Amino acid sequence: MVSCLGTLSIKAQQDIEDLTRYVDPLIGTKEMGHVFPGACIPFGMVQLSPDTDTIPYAVNGKYTGTAYRYCAGYQYSDKTIVGFTHTHLSGTGHSDLSDFLVMPTVGPVQLNPGTADKPESGYRSRFNHETEKAEPGYYSVMLDDYKVKAEMTTTTHVGVHQYTFPKSDDAHIILDLNHGIYNYDGKVLWSYLRVENDTLVTGYRITSGWARTNYLYFAMVFSKPIKSYGGKNEENLVYKGFWRKFDQEHNFPEMAGKKLKAHFDFATANGEKIKIKFAISAVSTEGALKNLEAEVPHFNFEKVRAEAKANWQSELSRIIVKASPEKKTTFYTSLYHTFINPIQYMDVDGQYRGLDHNIHQAKGFVNYSVFSLWDTYRALHPLFTLIQPERASDMINSMLAHYDQSVHHLLPVWSHFGNENWCMIGYHAVPVIADAWMNGIRGFDGKRALAACVASATHRSYGNLGEYMDLGYVPYEINAVGSSMTLEYAYDDWTIAQLANSLGEKEVAATFEKRANNWKNLFNERTGFVGAKDSKGNWKSPFDPMHTANEGFIEGNSWNYSLYVPQDIPTLIQKMGGNNRFCEHVDSLFTMYMPDKYFAETEDITREGLVGCYVHGNEPSHHVAYMYNWAGKPWKTQERIHQIVSTMYLNKPDGLCGNDDCGQMSAWYVFSTLGFYPVCPASGEYAIGAPSVSEGKIQLSGGKSMIVKANNLSDQNIYIKSVSLNGKPVTTSFLSYSDIADGGELVFEMSNRPNKKWAATVSFSK
Amino acid sequence: MVSCLGTLSIKAQQDIEDLTRYVDPLIGTKEMGHVFPGACIPFGMVQLSPDTDTIPYAVNGKYTGTAYRYCAGYQYSDKTIVGFTHTHLSGTGHSDLSDFLVMPTVGPVQLNPGTADKPESGYRSRFNHETEKAEPGYYSVMLDDYKVKAEMTTTTHVGVHQYTFPKSDDAHIILDLNHGIYNYDGKVLWSYLRVENDTLVTGYRITSGWARTNYLYFAMVFSKPIKSYGGKNEENLVYKGFWRKFDQEHNFPEMAGKKLKAHFDFATANGEKIKIKFAISAVSTEGALKNLEAEVPHFNFEKVRAEAKANWQSELSRIIVKASPEKKTTFYTSLYHTFINPIQYMDVDGQYRGLDHNIHQAKGFVNYSVFSLWDTYRALHPLFTLIQPERASDMINSMLAHYDQSVHHLLPVWSHFGNENWCMIGYHAVPVIADAWMNGIRGFDGKRALAACVASATHRSYGNLGEYMDLGYVPYEINAVGSSMTLEYAYDDWTIAQLANSLGEKEVAATFEKRANNWKNLFNERTGFVGAKDSKGNWKSPFDPMHTANEGFIEGNSWNYSLYVPQDIPTLIQKMGGNNRFCEHVDSLFTMYMPDKYFAETEDITREGLVGCYVHGNEPSHHVAYMYNWAGKPWKTQERIHQIVSTMYLNKPDGLCGNDDCGQMSAWYVFSTLGFYPVCPASGEYAIGAPSVSEGKIQLSGGKSMIVKANNLSDQNIYIKSVSLNGKPVTTSFLSYSDIADGGELVFEMSNRPNKKWAATVSFSK
Repeated sequence: MVSCLGTLSIKAQQDIEDLTRYVDPLIGTKEMGHVFPGACIPFGMVQLSPDTDTIPYAVNGKYTGTAYRYCAGYQYSDKTIVGFTHTHLSGTGHSDLSDFLVMPTVGPVQLNPGTADKPESGYRSRFNHETEKAEPGYYSVMLDDYKVKAEMTTTTHVGVHQYTFPKSDDAHIILDLNHGIYNYDGKVLWSYLRVENDTLVTGYRITSGWARTNYLYFAMVFSKPIKSYGGKNEENLVYKGFWRKFDQEHNFPEMAGKKLKAHFDFATANGEKIKIKFAISAVSTEGALKNLEAEVPHFNFEKVRAEAKANWQSELSRIIVKASPEKKTTFYTSLYHTFINPIQYMDVDGQYRGLDHNIHQAKGFVNYSVFSLWDTYRALHPLFTLIQPERASDMINSMLAHYDQSVHHLLPVWSHFGNENWCMIGYHAVPVIADAWMNGIRGFDGKRALAACVASATHRSYGNLGEYMDLGYVPYEINAVGSSMTLEYAYDDWTIAQLANSLGEKEVAATFEKRANNWKNLFNERTGFVGAKDSKGNWKSPFDPMHTANEGFIEGNSWNYSLYVPQDIPTLIQKMGGNNRFCEHVDSLFTMYMPDKYFAETEDITREGLVGCYVHGNEPSHHVAYMYNWAGKPWKTQERIHQIVSTMYLNKPDGLCGNDDCGQMSAWYVFSTLGFYPVCPASGEYAIGAPSVSEGKIQLSGGKSMIVKANNLSDQNIYIKSVSLNGKPVTTSFLSYSDIADGGELVFEMSNRPNKKWAATVSFSK
Repeated sequence: MVSCLGTLSIKAQQDIEDLTRYVDPLIGTKEMGHVFPGACIPFGMVQLSPDTDTIPYAVNGKYTGTAYRYCAGYQYSDKTIVGFTHTHLSGTGHSDLSDFLVMPTVGPVQLNPGTADKPESGYRSRFNHETEKAEPGYYSVMLDDYKVKAEMTTTTHVGVHQYTFPKSDDAHIILDLNHGIYNYDGKVLWSYLRVENDTLVTGYRITSGWARTNYLYFAMVFSKPIKSYGGKNEENLVYKGFWRKFDQEHNFPEMAGKKLKAHFDFATANGEKIKIKFAISAVSTEGALKNLEAEVPHFNFEKVRAEAKANWQSELSRIIVKASPEKKTTFYTSLYHTFINPIQYMDVDGQYRGLDHNIHQAKGFVNYSVFSLWDTYRALHPLFTLIQPERASDMINSMLAHYDQSVHHLLPVWSHFGNENWCMIGYHAVPVIADAWMNGIRGFDGKRALAACVASATHRSYGNLGEYMDLGYVPYEINAVGSSMTLEYAYDDWTIAQLANSLGEKEVAATFEKRANNWKNLFNERTGFVGAKDSKGNWKSPFDPMHTANEGFIEGNSWNYSLYVPQDIPTLIQKMGGNNRFCEHVDSLFTMYMPDKYFAETEDITREGLVGCYVHGNEPSHHVAYMYNWAGKPWKTQERIHQIVSTMYLNKPDGLCGNDDCGQMSAWYVFSTLGFYPVCPASGEYAIGAPSVSEGKIQLSGGKSMIVKANNLSDQNIYIKSVSLNGKPVTTSFLSYSDIADGGELVFEMSNRPNKKWAATVSFSK
C-alpha cells in the first residue's frame, strides 16, 4: 500500500490552509486541455468521471478521425452526461479507456446511451454546470432528466458512487460494458458479468483500443439489495446454442459477450441514496474484491471523500505558494494535474498484469503505468525527482520491470495499462532514469538501469536505430520523422553518458558522448536550421523549415525543432551564428505568424497555444523560452516566461492552450511559476526563469525545504534584478539541482525593468 | 502430479503382455465415431492429432450446420492433413477446440490452409494411410507434399513433435493461431504471440466456440534455433496506429490480434529432425513453461514416447482379458477410449482457470474438465468408480469446485475447459456422485456433495425445475423436451435419496424418494407409453411415440424413453402390463423399422447404430437390452447383448456406430464384454448380461482383483447356463457392486441354448 501522506508532520499539515479549494478540476475540460473533471486520488487507478459523449474512432470499419475531442470523455460545452466511467487519461492527445459505465436512471429501462440532441432516446441525461461540483477527490452533478443527484469519490482502486433518487418504483443503475472512449465495433474483445448475490456483481472486459490488449476486472457492491435485474448482449450472435434454454435477459446471473449491457432495478423512497462501491483490478475479479475490502470496507461515502481530500491536501502541500487566490487556483490546479498520471497499476497485494499479459508480483516497489514519456520526460518526471522522490524510484522500477517483460527488451516508450503503445519517438525513459540518478535518487539499481538504457538505445530494429547507429542520423526517406528522431536520440544518448560516467562505465560513456553529437549531422550550416538528409548524405531540397510533415519532423517544424539540443546549447548557439544571431532566431520564432497551411498539420497545435510560431500547446519547444539564458540574455527569457505563464494557463474551462499531456504542460507551469526549469534533465541544472508567486515553499526529501521568494513581484515587476541563494548572490542564470534540493532560501529581487547585465556573461566548461 | 502407474507392482506389470498393441486409435475415425487418431496419454490435456479438415460452423454470419462431421478434426476418408493441433474432444456430438495448429512445410511460405481439392493452395499436405501409424501415445504420418515425416507423442501438458525434413533451405514450421474446429469469423477473441528468443515462442488465444470463453496458453520450444521468422495478422484492421512504425511481418517478436499466423524458418539437411516441445496451460504462458519444464526437461522424443506407452500400458492393465487378438483389439481400443476424457485441466502446480475465469489452486485433488455428463453418468463414471477410484474422487472434487465457482450454484452439466456448456438435460453430476458414494468412494466430502446435489436439483430457473417441482413434471408447452427432462430428473432424484439416506439425512431422502416417482406423472396408462402433458395436466394429443421432436423428448422417442425408469423398473413393468407385455414392448423396439421421417430427426442417430428402433448409437437406451432381466427373461438380454457387442463395435475406421461420447459408448462395451452393466448407477447393483471374453481380470482398489470367466464361450455359446461367484451359485441375474469390488472369481457357464429357467423368478424388495 502506498502512504500518500507525504513527509509533513500532522502538526505541519494542520498549519497549512486547505489547498484543495484552489483546485478547479473543470479547468482544461473545454476544447484542447483533455483533462477530466471527475474524482480521483493522486496517482489513483480509478479516475471516476462523467463522460459527456464519446465519438467512435471508427464506424462501419472506417476511421472517423474525430475521437480526439473526447480523449478524456468530457467536453465542457456538452449538455448531456452519458454516464460515469472509472478510467481515464489525463490530458492526452490520444484517447482510450472509459471503462465500466455506471448511470442511474428512473423510468423505463434503456440500455443504449441515446444521442446528445435527443437524450431521452437513451439512458443519458441532461445536466447543468450550475449543479456541477468538481473538487479533488469528489464530483457531483444533478442528472436533470432523472432528478437524481450523482456524487462520487474514490480511493486508489475503488470508485464510490452515491446517487440520491426521487421516489420511484422504477429506479435503475445501468452498467454498460460496451461504452468506451476510442470505441469501435470490436474494441471490446470480450466482457463477462456475474451477479454473485443481491448486492455483489463482478466481471471484466478485455479491450483492444489504444492499449492493444487491456484486461480490466471489477467488483461492484450495492448498498441496497437489487430488486431485479436484467441484461442484454447486443451482439448479433450466429448461433446461441444451448443458451436458448434460459431467459438470459431477466435475473440470469451470468452474461458473456462483446456488447453487454445490464440494469439493476430498485424501488426508492424520495431522497433515498443508493451507494455503489466499484473496485477495479487488472488482475482478476478476485483482485478487485481484495482492493475493495482493503480500501473501502464500509459504506461511508463521506469518510472516503474526506480521505481523498486529505490525500490531495497532503500531496498539494509539497509546494506551498503565497499568491492571489486566482494565481493559487492556477498553480494548485496545475499541481493537481501533475499528480494524476502515471497511475498505480497494481492491486493492493502487489499483483499486476505485465507486458507479457501474465500476472506479476511487484517486489519492493509500486508498479505504475501510463507513462507518456515523449511528453513527460521534459518536466513532469524532473518534478517528481524533486518533490516525489519515492514515487520517482517506483516509476523507474516500473519501467525496469517493463523492460524485463518486454520481448523487445526495450524500456517503455508509452506504457499504457500493461501495454506498449509505441506512441511518438525516442527512448525517453532513459533521460527520466538518468535525471533521477544524477539527482541522487537511489531507489533503483543503477547498473541494471544503465544496461536497460543501453539496450534501448542500441536496438537496431526500434525506431530506425540501426540507421541511426550506422549513419549518425535517421534518413528522411527511411523515416519521415527521422530528423526529430535524430535530435531526440542525441539528447537521450547524452543522458546515458551522464549515467554511465556516474557509474564509472567509461567506455559506455564515451560511446554515448559521441552519439550525443549526432544532432550536428543534421545541422545545416548553410541554412542555420536542422534539416533532413537521405541515407546518402544529401540534404533534402527544397526544404521548408515551417513544414512539419515530410520535412523530417513530427509535431513541430524545423523552426522549433532546430532548437532541440538541450545537451549542448552553447554549440548550437555557436553554429547558429553566436548569441545575437541565435537570439534573433528565437525572437523570430516568438513573433512570426504561422500561416494556416502549416497550422493545420498537427491536431495537437491550437492557435491559442501559439506565441508567434512558438508552440506552447505542444512539447518540443517547452525549453525554448529558457534558451536566452545561454546567450546571455536572461531578461528575454523572463519576458517570455511571464508572457506564457500569464496567457497560456487561465482559470476557465478552456484555460489550457493544448493537451495537458499527463501533466507535462502543468509541470512546466509549476516549475516556471517557481522561477526555474529543467531545460536539460540529467544535467543536474535548472535554468532560471521568472518567478510568478511571491513565495513558494518546496517540501524536499529528508524533511528539508526550499523557500523561493520573489520580492517586489507585481504585474509590472516581472524582471529579475538579482538573485541570492542562502544569502549569497547568484550571478549566473542557472541553478544546480542541489542548490534547490539541499533546501534553504532562494530570493529573487524583481523589477519592472530588465537587468541586462545580470548573467549577461555566460561561460561553459563543456 | 498424477501418478498413473496404477496399483500394479512392477513385477506384475512385467508379466502382462503389451496391451497397447491391441489399441487401434484409427477405429472410430471414419464417419460417426468422432474420435481422433492422434497422440495423448490417459486423461492428458494435450491431445495432439492431425486435423484433416474443419468445416466452419458459420460463414458470413450464417450457421452452416455442418461442423458436426469434424468434431474431432479427423475424417478417415480425407486425403489431406491441414496440420497437427493440441486439443480435441473424443467422440462428442458437438465440436470445438483444435488449438494451436503446427504444420511443417517446405518451399515458399504459405499461411493459409488451402483446400482439400487443391492442397497446394495452402500449407496443408496430402497423406496416405499406408504411412500412417497410430498407437497409444504416438502418431506418425508422411506428409507427401513436403516429404516430411511427422511424428508426435505427448505428456499430460506437452505435445512433442518430431519432423524429419528433406534437405532444404526453405523449411518451415507454420503456427496458425486462427485454425480451429467449430471455427467462425470471430471465434478467436484474441491471440498473442511472443518470440522470446531463437528457440522459445510463447502465446495464447482466447476463443469463444462451444466453450464460450476458453483461455489457452502455450510455450513452444524448438530443438534448433530459428533462422528467421515472420507472421501476419489477417484481420482487416481499421487503424493500425503506431504499429506502422515497424515491419511487423518479419522477425518482429510480438504479435497480437484475432487472425495470427506465423512461420519459423530453418535450413535442413536431408533427414534432419526438427523437434518441438509444445506445452499448454489454461492459466498463463508462465504456467505452460512450468508444465514444460516439469514434464519434458529434455529433447528425447523416444523417451517421451516410451513413457506415454508405459502410461497407457499401466492404465490398460486395469483390465486384462483373454480373447482372440481381434476381440482384444476391440476391447482395448474401447478401454483406451474410456481413458481419454475427462482431461486433467490444471497445471503441474495445481493452478487452473475456474468457472469464474479466475485462477484457482486445486488443493488435494486433480482438477478435471470435459464432463459430458448426460452421456457418461450411465457407464463411464460407474466404470471409473470400479477401476479408477482415485480419479473418480478427483473428478467429483472437480465437480464440487465447479459448483463452488458456479454463479448459478449448480453442479456441472457439461463442463468444458472451465466453461459450463449447458449441453443436454438433467443434473447428472448427481448420479455420478451418488454412485461413487454408494459404492464406497470416500475421497470427497459427502455432506458437501449432498448439499451440492440438492442445490442443483432445486434450482427453479435451471431446466424448468420450478415447473417440475410445482407440477411433478415439465409440461411440453413450456419445454419441448419436458418429458425427457422429467424422466431423467426422477432418476437423478432417486440417486439423491440414496446418498441422503446413506448420510442419515432422512428428510432430504424422503423428499427425493417422492420426486423419484415423478415419472409416473407422465406415464400414460391408456397408451402404455410415457407421454407429454401440458401445465394443466392434459395429455398431448395426438401423440406419436415414434417422434422425438415436439413430443416432449430429446435424442430419443417415446418408444425408447418410456423405458427410462432405471430406478424402478419393476413398477414400470407392472404399469406396462406385466412381464410378458413388457417384453413384447422391448422385443418390438428391437425389431420394428424406423421410417425415414423419424430417422432424420436427430443428427446423433445412424442406421448403423440401430437394432430395430433401439438406438445403440446414442445414449438414452443404453440400459434397455438389460431390462429383460427384470422381467425374468435374462436370456433375451444375453441375446441382445451378444448381438450389440458383436455388430456395433467393429475393428475398422467406421467401426463405431455412433459418437463415442467421451467414452460412454466404449464404457458400455467394456462392461458388457465382462458380463455385467450398471443399469441404475447408485443402486449398488449390476445387471448380468453376457460375457464375450473367456476371461477378464479386473484390477480393483486395495490390490484386489476380480476374475471373470466365461467357460465354454464361443460364437454359438452366447447364453448363460449358470453363474457362480467364489464358488457359490448366483441365482438372480443381478450382482451387487461389492460382489465385484470385493474381488474373487465370477464364473459364467455358457451354452448354445438359452437357460430360460435361470433367474426366471424375480422378486424385488422395493
